[in-house]
Amino acid sequence: MLLKVSCKLNNFLSIKHGIKKYYSVLASVLEKPELGENVEIKGWVKSLRVQKELVFADVSDGSCAQKLQVTIPKHLKTNDLTYGSAVNITGKLARSPRGQIELLAENVKIYGKCVVLDGYPFNPRTSHPPEYLRRYLHLRSRTNYISAMLRIRHSVTQLIHKYFSSKNYINIHTPIITSNDCEGAGEIFKVLPDNEETVKSMMQQGLNSETVYFGSKAFLTVSGQLHLEAVCRGMGNVYTFGPTFRAENSKSRLHLSEFYMLEGELAFCETLEHLQNIIEDFLKFILTEIRNSNEKDLNLIDKNNTTPTWLNKQFITLNYDEAKNILDKKGMNTAEVGINKEQELALVDYCNGVPVFIVRKFGNIPTGGFGLGLERLLQVICAIPNIKDTLPFPRWPHNCSM
Amino acid sequence: MLLKVSCKLNNFLSIKHGIKKYYSVLASVLEKPELGENVEIKGWVKSLRVQKELVFADVSDGSCAQKLQVTIPKHLKTNDLTYGSAVNITGKLARSPRGQIELLAENVKIYGKCVVLDGYPFNPRTSHPPEYLRRYLHLRSRTNYISAMLRIRHSVTQLIHKYFSSKNYINIHTPIITSNDCEGAGEIFKVLPDNEETVKSMMQQGLNSETVYFGSKAFLTVSGQLHLEAVCRGMGNVYTFGPTFRAENSKSRLHLSEFYMLEGELAFCETLEHLQNIIEDFLKFILTEIRNSNEKDLNLIDKNNTTPTWLNKQFITLNYDEAKNILDKKGMNTAEVGINKEQELALVDYCNGVPVFIVRKFGNIPTGGFGLGLERLLQVICAIPNIKDTLPFPRWPHNCSM
Repeated sequence: MLLKVSCKLNNFLSIKHGIKKYYSVLASVLEKPELGENVEIKGWVKSLRVQKELVFADVSDGSCAQKLQVTIPKHLKTNDLTYGSAVNITGKLARSPRGQIELLAENVKIYGKCVVLDGYPFNPRTSHPPEYLRRYLHLRSRTNYISAMLRIRHSVTQLIHKYFSSKNYINIHTPIITSNDCEGAGEIFKVLPDNEETVKSMMQQGLNSETVYFGSKAFLTVSGQLHLEAVCRGMGNVYTFGPTFRAENSKSRLHLSEFYMLEGELAFCETLEHLQNIIEDFLKFILTEIRNSNEKDLNLIDKNNTTPTWLNKQFITLNYDEAKNILDKKGMNTAEVGINKEQELALVDYCNGVPVFIVRKFGNIPTGGFGLGLERLLQVICAIPNIKDTLPFPRWPHNCSM
Repeated sequence: MLLKVSCKLNNFLSIKHGIKKYYSVLASVLEKPELGENVEIKGWVKSLRVQKELVFADVSDGSCAQKLQVTIPKHLKTNDLTYGSAVNITGKLARSPRGQIELLAENVKIYGKCVVLDGYPFNPRTSHPPEYLRRYLHLRSRTNYISAMLRIRHSVTQLIHKYFSSKNYINIHTPIITSNDCEGAGEIFKVLPDNEETVKSMMQQGLNSETVYFGSKAFLTVSGQLHLEAVCRGMGNVYTFGPTFRAENSKSRLHLSEFYMLEGELAFCETLEHLQNIIEDFLKFILTEIRNSNEKDLNLIDKNNTTPTWLNKQFITLNYDEAKNILDKKGMNTAEVGINKEQELALVDYCNGVPVFIVRKFGNIPTGGFGLGLERLLQVICAIPNIKDTLPFPRWPHNCSM
């Protein structure tokens, strides 16, 4: 095995003397602070208050919601130490008069300056609206709102794997490129080689530019269900969790062209109730765990952050006739087949916000499956109104920047 | 939140009486067997030996490498109980004369028959060559070779997340569809909507069918590095792990059109040595853990399965001049820029199989990154010669089935 290491060379040279404890990330400093220890921290200055003899800097390295307050003697303050600059600070950990952990700086190095007037789009101590942040995809992970959401997204991802692993489900990497258009959905993306030379060199009779590479037309997946069903018949309970695609011309706050979907397939699942119990248990597990592990991140996104009322209630099951009856009583038109978005919301409202299973029929099934979009789950968890703010680089019509 | 449950209805009805312990998966039965307990197991018959008064069936449900031996009284043997059939068996756990856990069957139900003569491609107790299995992608996860590999792939995936999470790296879902062609590599796939109506309805002046949807040409990612670098500057240490694409016309045993890549980006990484240490530590962690957690799976794939000799040795670092010198002494042509595949292998051979870092230069870096293909890692872990057998649904030129 030969390893290639890519790196960007730079002349910065760090010489460390007398550092008893080297913390690689702030999350560790704040988790197990050892007062009086010499430590070195690295991060970005999120705010700066200059007083007569001291400078107070809040430093973050993105590893957790909290910032570390650093008290810097005035003589260590250079012109480059500004809001947004990347710093390396050594000193001793102490407890501030208010009881918080703080770092008493003894040495301050600047890795990189941040000239706000040079076009840096975020102002200190300002909460910019999400629409504004979305214009700066390459920079927005520096804001509280987006960095908190990305840490929650990270934790939910880990929890999904943890939950299904603990129940002996096997994670299957279903393919992104597929030759079947799955549900017969018309709104799919096709995939073909971009290089004209490749197309030319592979061309054979009976093929065209769309079929030349794979021998058949190829699309981006809209669901891994077909693949899961195949593997389920050899491996038992399986799940897939990864990118999924829709080529719809929709710019709504609930739609994306690329999103993450969790899909499960249960072998020998004999009742619909069993499937529903798994889904209910899973959702309550995720909600409970994330509210513990990422409480401070949730508060950064939504100051009014409260526990959903449904967390301690049993989910509700309605069959199709019951659902229609409720909607009829509300005076909604149920003549069409199926239940539309507005009617779905009316049903959840009728059930006081508790999640509702709608089944057409109660029956017994030898295998069962489910699908759940990660971004919509994150919208529920974090109370984020627009789906485009639940992932680092959203794609929707006319938007594929970076 | 409204949940839609997809299911396939079937008339099978299971009524359970007197089952003291219900094991959902065989992995649990074998992990903590309680002798004398009434249990129910579900799975597939992997082999069947019919004797005078007893039938011995090896049953697997895909959750682990081991099979459970079931001893079935002759009167419970129906014509449908054959090799390959899906069964539900209740009975008591006992220890066989040889000391193995076995199930003494009291009731046998057949979920689904398996008529081998009807075109089922795998014969009992036969080890089919991988090339043959690859012709049956939808069925091959029923074989020892592929199911073992998929369980190892699952475990490696979990371990990757575990390792980086424990070190406070944030997992970033870098996008699959991207508007940049990354390294300027020519061999990329382009993505466009398949539906002519969508294209027509979105068309505007200045756009064409390739740019109409996103407003610019869009491709499948060849690396998440650019996105990681952007997020790293806000969130610190980050990693991405997901599908990556190449539109090369290569059918070699080391190339795929779609594969999983792990990429990491380290903030404030000041020395190349630090980056190398992380990579070495990570690889040794994965190898050590997987040899513990999936020992029986490794044995199913490679009977000669032995611990790699490099696991307890320090990785070797060569700079470019040192590498050239070694190759020159071996009489290899090093006039060209770069080191080719054959030369890479010669260097690893020179170092007695220990992984080798090649760096062009020793230097100090403020950020560092690395990339590692999951499939090639699995080839190393499992000694699988052909990369197409390291993932459930491989894609390569002319092959995109399912």
